[in-house]
Amino acid sequence: MVEQRLNQYCESVEAALMKYIQPERDLGHTKIFEAARYSAMAGGKRIRPALVLEFCRVCGGDIEAAMPLACALEMIHTYSLIHDDLPCMDDDDLRRGKPTNHKVYGEAMAVLAGDGLLNLAFETASAHNPKLPPEVQVQAIRALSRASGMDGMIGGQVLDMEAENRSITLEELQTLQSLKTGALLKAGASLGCIAARATKEQRRAAETYAQKIGLAFQIRDDMLDIEGDAAVFGKPIGSDAENGKSTYPSLLGMEKCRELVDQLTQEAIQALACFEDHEFLAELAKMLAGRIK
Amino acid sequence: MVEQRLNQYCESVEAALMKYIQPERDLGHTKIFEAARYSAMAGGKRIRPALVLEFCRVCGGDIEAAMPLACALEMIHTYSLIHDDLPCMDDDDLRRGKPTNHKVYGEAMAVLAGDGLLNLAFETASAHNPKLPPEVQVQAIRALSRASGMDGMIGGQVLDMEAENRSITLEELQTLQSLKTGALLKAGASLGCIAARATKEQRRAAETYAQKIGLAFQIRDDMLDIEGDAAVFGKPIGSDAENGKSTYPSLLGMEKCRELVDQLTQEAIQALACFEDHEFLAELAKMLAGRIK
Repeated sequence: MVEQRLNQYCESVEAALMKYIQPERDLGHTKIFEAARYSAMAGGKRIRPALVLEFCRVCGGDIEAAMPLACALEMIHTYSLIHDDLPCMDDDDLRRGKPTNHKVYGEAMAVLAGDGLLNLAFETASAHNPKLPPEVQVQAIRALSRASGMDGMIGGQVLDMEAENRSITLEELQTLQSLKTGALLKAGASLGCIAARATKEQRRAAETYAQKIGLAFQIRDDMLDIEGDAAVFGKPIGSDAENGKSTYPSLLGMEKCRELVDQLTQEAIQALACFEDHEFLAELAKMLAGRIK
Repeated sequence: MVEQRLNQYCESVEAALMKYIQPERDLGHTKIFEAARYSAMAGGKRIRPALVLEFCRVCGGDIEAAMPLACALEMIHTYSLIHDDLPCMDDDDLRRGKPTNHKVYGEAMAVLAGDGLLNLAFETASAHNPKLPPEVQVQAIRALSRASGMDGMIGGQVLDMEAENRSITLEELQTLQSLKTGALLKAGASLGCIAARATKEQRRAAETYAQKIGLAFQIRDDMLDIEGDAAVFGKPIGSDAENGKSTYPSLLGMEKCRELVDQLTQEAIQALACFEDHEFLAELAKMLAGRIK
């Protein structure tokens, strides 16, 4: 059931992304839209936009109203991957089994395609929308830009860069993770609530859920780097240890990590108590914790 | 008189930029703010934010209300310079006589500082502002994001990249210039009018003015690359011809260029007729055309 609805969300988000990532007219600059679509359409579970749409739904909002915000968030996630893969950053040749953006379009175009998607997120979120009044749009843009900015995701990328080749404490690792991957997941919950004009209590509960599943997912990801199956995991096993990276297992041990993932997943599900129809979100938490497929 | 007011605008914009480009708290990620400030404070005439503030003023608006929009526009201009200077783009070591961002902070940090400034522009424009109602903020964010996006400035950067090492037509050069440098100048006029809640007629006139001075400035810039003084110009003379770039002088000849700059400056000044107090803007047009200091 969780897979089925996730697939539905995935399909509608991808159709909307295709519509948004189009030039107004052909001025000889259309290659950048091709490059942006290449990465935006390169797969992925679309967890972030799914959180936007589902939290909008469980708060009684109109999913269609939230779609531009869901796509804006996914555009920001995509741009961050394009820039992260650049030779001067992680220098990755493959992402989800496909050549990275700069391998296909060259470095200069990859920088611009990333910039373009970051910018397009705000074009999409601010575009005239009869279903979202301006005060809701501004509130959403504020939440989105704060989550993705230098005190949010970009700040996390900086911490990650500065943590290379040195060991960090558990507290430092938590701060890094809460910004680098946590901020956009939390933004998914926030944007869904904003679009539905949810109560403060609902928004707080949604954000707690997103923070818990984000942390559980990160710990699980670190564990898979040690005990996973490279084919399923999608990247080589053992790369963290090889790179001397501090991870949850290296700091806490595998047994403690397993307990923490369980505990966080339970807490995430408990946070959903104020939403009547929360079965999908509960199943999603379990899925991300690796307990169901 | 034009210099004096430009300096005043410059000072207040720089004070505001310093205030905006600050971390909320120190999480170990403050280096990126230092990198962002390095480029944002590296000088420049601040023409774009001055257009925002002055058009807001001549349309009867509150300059303070327009300040976040003026700074957002300058942040976008600054990020575009940081990314343009990267080794995979123009590979420049110096900008306005100072080492470029990546020369000081490294390529990875320069990519992130650029991303951070682009993002901060939208954080700044969407921040709670008692002087700008949400519907005005959304309208401003829409104008700003469209101007700087893939159908605006970024599209112009793509055209510029694709024009390398081949000759282009006058029409192609005009499209390229109207996007790459014209879009943000026009946005300066638009944002000032939006902040002041100007009439449609005022906004159209302001945008016409900005487009004319933008084109005149670009032609003048191309001319200076042929007949200028490297010390005053701030970059080596003759680099366009050396790089085989199509420019206004190479396509039209110097005499025709001189005439065009005069004509465009006249037309820009004529477009100001609907604004009572337009002396500064008229002088600014003449200054940019190189007719007064």
